[in-house]
Amino acid sequence: MSTTENGPFEWVQADEGIRRRVLAHTPDAMTVEVAFDADAVGAPHSHPHLQTVFVQSGKFVFTINGKETVVQSGDSLVIPREAHHGCKAIEPGTLIDCFVPRRDDFL
Amino acid sequence: MSTTENGPFEWVQADEGIRRRVLAHTPDAMTVEVAFDADAVGAPHSHPHLQTVFVQSGKFVFTINGKETVVQSGDSLVIPREAHHGCKAIEPGTLIDCFVPRRDDFL
Repeated sequence: MSTTENGPFEWVQADEGIRRRVLAHTPDAMTVEVAFDADAVGAPHSHPHLQTVFVQSGKFVFTINGKETVVQSGDSLVIPREAHHGCKAIEPGTLIDCFVPRRDDFL
Repeated sequence: MSTTENGPFEWVQADEGIRRRVLAHTPDAMTVEVAFDADAVGAPHSHPHLQTVFVQSGKFVFTINGKETVVQSGDSLVIPREAHHGCKAIEPGTLIDCFVPRRDDFL
């Protein structure tokens, strides 16, 4: 049984106009806060981790396996394992991402 | 590959002083918004689902496998599968929970 490592941890620069910080993690799961400037683009990518997204603030367009979805404050999405996905901030804002298992590359 | 079912869905009464609504789900994962009145108590329980918690607002004391942790707006926790856990709202607030896999009993 793993104990949660509670942060938040340090902010790090991700893509241009995008910063992230880990909030909590165990080997099995990780929550991450991701802050986007206006028009910042999270480049399309994929990973074996299951991901959920909660839009804490702002407005975003997500493209998941070629399908576009517009989400705003209070909305949520599930991104399947290995799905090709990216997003763009239509308005500046913050996402709360959950990854299962943990994104070890974020530590 | 499952498509996300996006809500939010209807609010439902949970424990006394606690309401919840599903935000999004696939068979693999589910996000849920849970609103607590002041002093509301999420009764201790356990489930085979991995759970993460993001505190959107308010202040809570969580008890996870006998260990107490106080969390407030912006904090996050990971609750391991089968962990015995409960919480109390020290201040009214809202949690964003992620469950892996989906809590089919919430549909």
